[in-house]
Amino acid sequence: MPEGKVRIALDAMGGDFAPAAVVEGAILAQKGYNGDFEIVLVGEEEKIKKELTRLQAISLPFIIQHASEQINMEDLATEGLRKKKDSSIAVALRMQKEGRVDAFVSGGNTGVVMATAFMTLGRLEGVNRPAIATYIPSEKDVVLVLDVGANADCKAQNLYEFGVMGSIYYNYVLKKENPRVGLLSIGEESTKGNEVTVGAHKLLNDGNINFVGNVEGRDILKGVCDVVVCDGFIGNIVLKFVESIGGFMTSLVRRQINSSFLFRIGALLLKWPLRNIRKTLDFAEYGGAPLLGVEGVCIICHGESPPKAIMNALKMASEMVRGKVNQHIKEKLLAQKVKLGK
Amino acid sequence: MPEGKVRIALDAMGGDFAPAAVVEGAILAQKGYNGDFEIVLVGEEEKIKKELTRLQAISLPFIIQHASEQINMEDLATEGLRKKKDSSIAVALRMQKEGRVDAFVSGGNTGVVMATAFMTLGRLEGVNRPAIATYIPSEKDVVLVLDVGANADCKAQNLYEFGVMGSIYYNYVLKKENPRVGLLSIGEESTKGNEVTVGAHKLLNDGNINFVGNVEGRDILKGVCDVVVCDGFIGNIVLKFVESIGGFMTSLVRRQINSSFLFRIGALLLKWPLRNIRKTLDFAEYGGAPLLGVEGVCIICHGESPPKAIMNALKMASEMVRGKVNQHIKEKLLAQKVKLGK
Repeated sequence: MPEGKVRIALDAMGGDFAPAAVVEGAILAQKGYNGDFEIVLVGEEEKIKKELTRLQAISLPFIIQHASEQINMEDLATEGLRKKKDSSIAVALRMQKEGRVDAFVSGGNTGVVMATAFMTLGRLEGVNRPAIATYIPSEKDVVLVLDVGANADCKAQNLYEFGVMGSIYYNYVLKKENPRVGLLSIGEESTKGNEVTVGAHKLLNDGNINFVGNVEGRDILKGVCDVVVCDGFIGNIVLKFVESIGGFMTSLVRRQINSSFLFRIGALLLKWPLRNIRKTLDFAEYGGAPLLGVEGVCIICHGESPPKAIMNALKMASEMVRGKVNQHIKEKLLAQKVKLGK
Repeated sequence: MPEGKVRIALDAMGGDFAPAAVVEGAILAQKGYNGDFEIVLVGEEEKIKKELTRLQAISLPFIIQHASEQINMEDLATEGLRKKKDSSIAVALRMQKEGRVDAFVSGGNTGVVMATAFMTLGRLEGVNRPAIATYIPSEKDVVLVLDVGANADCKAQNLYEFGVMGSIYYNYVLKKENPRVGLLSIGEESTKGNEVTVGAHKLLNDGNINFVGNVEGRDILKGVCDVVVCDGFIGNIVLKFVESIGGFMTSLVRRQINSSFLFRIGALLLKWPLRNIRKTLDFAEYGGAPLLGVEGVCIICHGESPPKAIMNALKMASEMVRGKVNQHIKEKLLAQKVKLGK
């Protein structure tokens, strides 16, 4: 790990609008955060340089790390992926494993990034199952939900670990001490839920975090707690459900508004507020989703991430390194194991 | 079962605004549906008569069935419930068991109604686990989601039965032939999901219904299918999540609108459309949630149901009886068992 400045590998080839949107995001971050961290652009050198030239940013102090191979749709469907040792994802994660960078940000295929990170970085000591955490807007603060897709089937112990990881991430990256952790279930009493959550409730309760008990589906958008713990199956369904609210509301609004001239004028006056509301619901605004529980820092961005999201994801990665999130997670989980005599 | 007219027992004491809102709902239904069905008001006779007098409806052809006991909060927390053989819920369900009514509608405590219905009516032949189905609005037609709370832990066979029950209900009550049934999961491929959904996918595929495969969290509000199958844990979380969208959007809109005078004028012009949108998201509008898989017809209403919801629930009950939903479910499930040689 380099002394002083945090160094982040950015997957220049990952995402639907790569490399253009990614390089633009890197430029935004470089300018916006005054070089708070160093960015290594990983991918096809020629293409990256072309983008930097186009965006008149060739003189900015980026490091470029060439990676010759591209992951395509066919690779995703087959086992061909393992053979591509020189894709931007594989190269960047090896750099992190070797200590040449501190973190990795990618808008590439979530499954590929996750699998390669598991393989290359390995699990963090004390963690049985890594999890993907994501930000969801609420009436109050932003809510961190995990897992949202890494583990479709979970045990109580996994949910407990998610609670600890989420709590520490929220504390050191979102800078809120003692964040409230809730367990997503169907009823507030500790005995309500399914077999797994009833077991997890007990572990979380004894887990030396600010566990506020079970929360229900309605509590997420209300912002009743800061961290919501659930298995990756339900987390993914909730995440995708939230992503669809914007479109649904737009369709409802359209249907209503087109029924009268006065309504159309009202809608015209409210154009900006309505756009802002859609933005609140737009995940791209939040940056990326941290993959917690691997021996490293890995932020997975939406494939459709605009430059601003890439910038935010780079900042997240930097905060996660600076906040020593992984060290805190490891210490907390191991201390708990000692306490329980495991 | 009485010849000709459908007869429905209505729990006059169930719900937060009972008996006033319930009796008012019965009057709306009696007038709105021109006596399409007979309504038996079950509960404390004196109180019911007082409401009918207050609402100048004492001359309407309601049947009143006295039930002397009230279920209170203490009963819910203890085992006291079993002793109350003369609560409106127990009396109404016994009436159905004895064939004196064809259906039961209640805004009382969901857990109590469900448990008493299981005990009194029993399971429908061919069904292993009854399920609660609920309507959720979408960009297209209304979507029927089940289970939303009767079964926190499910097996593949249960999800298959939910699919069949939902399909038949949609067909005969919502009058859409061959409704599209989707399995809520995390990925469209049949191999994606958790252990239970992967098994359920196969059963649903072979199940002689219009199974369209896995659907994701984002597909519900889009109205990609008519019936969404899931376990009661995830269904309940989704249901409560949907219930919270209205309040969340209102809070977002308020925050935006208060920032400018022009926005406030726009909002004033859009007052009606915005109210209509909230209504679309308001479950009370849809009536109640059918409990499918018991040997009878039982519609469970929200505790806060306004009179209109009670009216709609009575109509649902009537359609479910007329459509012979239970008979169709039984036949389909038994035929499938024969086909599979079980």
